[in-house]
Amino acid sequence: MANAMLLAAVLVYFLVLPFSALALTQDFCVADLACPDTPAGYPCKKGVGPGDFYYHGLATAGNTNNLIKAAVTPAFVGQFPGVNGLGISAARLDIAVGGVVPLHTHPAASELLFVTEGTILAGFISSSSNTVYTKTLYKGDIMVFPQGLLHYQYNGGSSPAVALVAFSGPNPGLQITDYALFANNLPSAVVETVTFLDDAQVKKLKSVLGGTG
Amino acid sequence: MANAMLLAAVLVYFLVLPFSALALTQDFCVADLACPDTPAGYPCKKGVGPGDFYYHGLATAGNTNNLIKAAVTPAFVGQFPGVNGLGISAARLDIAVGGVVPLHTHPAASELLFVTEGTILAGFISSSSNTVYTKTLYKGDIMVFPQGLLHYQYNGGSSPAVALVAFSGPNPGLQITDYALFANNLPSAVVETVTFLDDAQVKKLKSVLGGTG
Amino acid sequence: MANAMLLAAVLVYFLVLPFSALALTQDFCVADLACPDTPAGYPCKKGVGPGDFYYHGLATAGNTNNLIKAAVTPAFVGQFPGVNGLGISAARLDIAVGGVVPLHTHPAASELLFVTEGTILAGFISSSSNTVYTKTLYKGDIMVFPQGLLHYQYNGGSSPAVALVAFSGPNPGLQITDYALFANNLPSAVVETVTFLDDAQVKKLKSVLGGTG
Amino acid sequence: MANAMLLAAVLVYFLVLPFSALALTQDFCVADLACPDTPAGYPCKKGVGPGDFYYHGLATAGNTNNLIKAAVTPAFVGQFPGVNGLGISAARLDIAVGGVVPLHTHPAASELLFVTEGTILAGFISSSSNTVYTKTLYKGDIMVFPQGLLHYQYNGGSSPAVALVAFSGPNPGLQITDYALFANNLPSAVVETVTFLDDAQVKKLKSVLGGTG
Amino acid sequence: MANAMLLAAVLVYFLVLPFSALALTQDFCVADLACPDTPAGYPCKKGVGPGDFYYHGLATAGNTNNLIKAAVTPAFVGQFPGVNGLGISAARLDIAVGGVVPLHTHPAASELLFVTEGTILAGFISSSSNTVYTKTLYKGDIMVFPQGLLHYQYNGGSSPAVALVAFSGPNPGLQITDYALFANNLPSAVVETVTFLDDAQVKKLKSVLGGTG
Amino acid sequence: MANAMLLAAVLVYFLVLPFSALALTQDFCVADLACPDTPAGYPCKKGVGPGDFYYHGLATAGNTNNLIKAAVTPAFVGQFPGVNGLGISAARLDIAVGGVVPLHTHPAASELLFVTEGTILAGFISSSSNTVYTKTLYKGDIMVFPQGLLHYQYNGGSSPAVALVAFSGPNPGLQITDYALFANNLPSAVVETVTFLDDAQVKKLKSVLGGTG
Repeated sequence: MANAMLLAAVLVYFLVLPFSALALTQDFCVADLACPDTPAGYPCKKGVGPGDFYYHGLATAGNTNNLIKAAVTPAFVGQFPGVNGLGISAARLDIAVGGVVPLHTHPAASELLFVTEGTILAGFISSSSNTVYTKTLYKGDIMVFPQGLLHYQYNGGSSPAVALVAFSGPNPGLQITDYALFANNLPSAVVETVTFLDDAQVKKLKSVLGGTG
Repeated sequence: MANAMLLAAVLVYFLVLPFSALALTQDFCVADLACPDTPAGYPCKKGVGPGDFYYHGLATAGNTNNLIKAAVTPAFVGQFPGVNGLGISAARLDIAVGGVVPLHTHPAASELLFVTEGTILAGFISSSSNTVYTKTLYKGDIMVFPQGLLHYQYNGGSSPAVALVAFSGPNPGLQITDYALFANNLPSAVVETVTFLDDAQVKKLKSVLGGTG
Repeated sequence: MANAMLLAAVLVYFLVLPFSALALTQDFCVADLACPDTPAGYPCKKGVGPGDFYYHGLATAGNTNNLIKAAVTPAFVGQFPGVNGLGISAARLDIAVGGVVPLHTHPAASELLFVTEGTILAGFISSSSNTVYTKTLYKGDIMVFPQGLLHYQYNGGSSPAVALVAFSGPNPGLQITDYALFANNLPSAVVETVTFLDDAQVKKLKSVLGGTG
Repeated sequence: MANAMLLAAVLVYFLVLPFSALALTQDFCVADLACPDTPAGYPCKKGVGPGDFYYHGLATAGNTNNLIKAAVTPAFVGQFPGVNGLGISAARLDIAVGGVVPLHTHPAASELLFVTEGTILAGFISSSSNTVYTKTLYKGDIMVFPQGLLHYQYNGGSSPAVALVAFSGPNPGLQITDYALFANNLPSAVVETVTFLDDAQVKKLKSVLGGTG
Repeated sequence: MANAMLLAAVLVYFLVLPFSALALTQDFCVADLACPDTPAGYPCKKGVGPGDFYYHGLATAGNTNNLIKAAVTPAFVGQFPGVNGLGISAARLDIAVGGVVPLHTHPAASELLFVTEGTILAGFISSSSNTVYTKTLYKGDIMVFPQGLLHYQYNGGSSPAVALVAFSGPNPGLQITDYALFANNLPSAVVETVTFLDDAQVKKLKSVLGGTG
Repeated sequence: MANAMLLAAVLVYFLVLPFSALALTQDFCVADLACPDTPAGYPCKKGVGPGDFYYHGLATAGNTNNLIKAAVTPAFVGQFPGVNGLGISAARLDIAVGGVVPLHTHPAASELLFVTEGTILAGFISSSSNTVYTKTLYKGDIMVFPQGLLHYQYNGGSSPAVALVAFSGPNPGLQITDYALFANNLPSAVVETVTFLDDAQVKKLKSVLGGTG
């Protein structure tokens, strides 16, 4: 009884106070990709709805009908603006038999990989002692790759592999070593000087990956 | 003597160099609430004065003339733009005899409570073992509530209680559990499923708190 | 040729310098759970191998043979010490038909959920306006839940649902509202005061969830 | 009815799973001051109780029976270990009529000051343009002092002043400029060189504040 | 051979996928100084080139032809927008024989000093015990000054000294104590109250440094 | 006069209060390398003196008498424990004519390079578009390399080059791509699969750099 009266009174209190007082509270900050980015992420979009926290783009397999037999489908802040400011993002890996996600780093996040189908041979290399940490992962296994370290994923199994990947930041970046070296206009002489690769090897890969110089 | 000459020379040095060189140094960043927020807070307002670092809104008691007999008066970034980017904010609690600040969390900050008048029974609940940490606080006592954990404050004394509250962030948020469950359009069936509350209880509280569904 | 000589010389350089100089570089910090935790995570374990970055515990379905028809299997730092300091962790959700992960928060992380099997109705509630953000998620869909906000997952489909969950921190916490209120020794009178629930409702849930008082 | 059965089943689920799985979740990290500090704070104490989150030491007025007529009573992590890792701490200021908290900085936190009794003239000085931001604060007023900037508080009123102060970190530090210059063994010649103060002034203050050299 | 085919196929994969998918990845965020700053730094400029990561302004000696015989040339975010968001910045110190960089703090960064020419007597003062940590530094020596603590550099040698300085943030700030006290309109009476300096001393320095009041 | 009395009284106040109250304040945290590291750095050493904030190890040129004609001398936390927790560290680069610091990343820090002698051709590669940002740097020039991105330094001039390097963290790491690929036991077949390098190239570099497999 007193409880019922209490509740009736609460109504007034609750409806009046918090709405005006706390209207600016920031529970989340869905990216407004039309604004310039900042070091902490994009400015917050106005007019947010449930769809902003949901992403369908990882439901479909990436096209592995290429010779590396692999595809990476990202759900970073650029594709999934709802993760802006939340310290997390995602991607899907499809790797056909014999396919590979080549040696790469994520400059701005650690990675956690869940195998959902098939078998993946994954590894990363530590910077202090060049130790290789490698595991063969089966369905249901997870592996973590520390931020900024070189790593790779390879499907050494006999059926297609799929993995879901989470990152410890909304915009982890992806620097594929081969692409950084051979798919741009960095002169071959510079590449050779900084990698000790032979000239023929550099020119061959530049040719294939579309690089010049 | 040499000292006097030294000082005369310093004048030139000081007036010329630092003004131009360091004009963009960021000692503070008073919120420009007219701009969109970012994950790190609001863009900085131009033309700042002493009044931007001062707030009078906590000097007046909140109106506790309601059945919960309590009022929360915030000085978050939305009310007090000077705290933007400074990792701190404040609020005032007025709790009449028998009044209560119902079960709630601050998703984005820890809370430090100072009792300035009266007696407050306060508690929080840990997530790992559901342990309740509760204390009866008298004038001059302080208590800290870790970020994100459920907590409450109750005036079990015989005179009005007042507390000043500080938060470890400029925009701590305030999620009152009852309000989250019963003051919106979340269908009763969903509320019952996710809380195990009885249908009659849910509908009673929805009715009182203005919820639908 | 000169290149070959160059490389021969590099060997000396590389082997001598970086090993001693950089032996303490911290690429990762696998938790030594035997040491006391710190605000930034556990001290680093010595003698790390590939197994420290790998976890098998999410490969097996949790037991949903209970009335909530759901199970949460965590891979937080306590189960998977390799994530210590890396800003990420994981869990597996198994939800049978009609099962539910009840209303809860993670005080210390945002959550990203991937549906790998079945259908999940998920939602979270914002703190500033009590708006409910809810979506029905199918296989392959992802949804993000901002740090500290109340949320839930329900299997409203006709087959079992499985989700992989990632968190933006190694130790996200899990505070289930019902458990915080009814599974401990918080006196019923206090629960009623801070939630406005009826006495009978509180006692019923306390009885079921093992609470006292 | 089905609900009652549901709840009975929940009991098993809840009691079995989360207790073991999440035993290491870190809701808080009360400082174990007997351990060495780390850059993120002290290691966590074991065996925490409600008293660890409560502090009584600010309830009593500091002794202002000295010529500066002021006292600072801290509740930093060293006095109040419960704030370790929580991003907040506190202090109490007692300033008799004409008393002053001399020019100082907090190297590791911003400060929020609540006046609870009397009148305080407070100010801080910006680094980029040496602008002074000063306000006369009355009971109930609050003012924020950005991290690392020189500031002071003075009781220019006709009755004792009391303020409660919160900091945006658990260990804010306190560097009183006079003390840094005159209360140690920094040679007078060095002090004069780096401050342009006269020799007599330096020696006078060194003598009073217990400095040597 | 298979390898060559593989590479040919890679071309398609690489060129198609990452360009569109990752176009918003944030490797860096060169400051757009025309936009308002935020607590995390300036919004990112569009149209970045190599020149944005390069700065020539420290190549020229600062003018020490003044009585303090010293000059500070900053490369903070305001001068060198490329450091925005990268957690680092720089400055050059030129100190003629007998010159001094007066007592100061950087509110927002630690400092690392490299001596590249001459001899510098440097020191900082801790806040907790007023201990002075001082060293005479020769060419090639480095010294670190913790964030927010008072410090100074003096050329006690017989030839000009030059130092390169790095900061742990893009906008460290520079608060020179004398300037904060004597180069503005802070009333002499207030300065005397908060520093215990004599009236004559304060007025002398105010006169020299251009202060009023 | 009153001022003199004031100061006499201050002595009592100052000497009594802050010493006991603030004894645990953390101005810095010199690494105790004998303790296990934590994600935020090493525990703090006791008994700190001026020598802990000073490092002489960069004063001497590294030995470039090898075929890469370069040497990196680090002053990371492992060599210079005073930088622990301060967000900064350093290194010295000596590069003889024609020498090179090969392609590498720092997983845990951005880098700021000052050229103190000679000419250095430096560059980094962005992850999103593989753009090369390269500059020829002369004495006094500085360049910044964003965290985690591949970069290199080459002495293309006619005299030895020296650079001082600062990092935005105390333990930046150094991952030299060639070393990660060819100086360990990563099987050649794996290297070829993840890099598309020819078998002969891989075996040649493995042989030179001491790798096996």
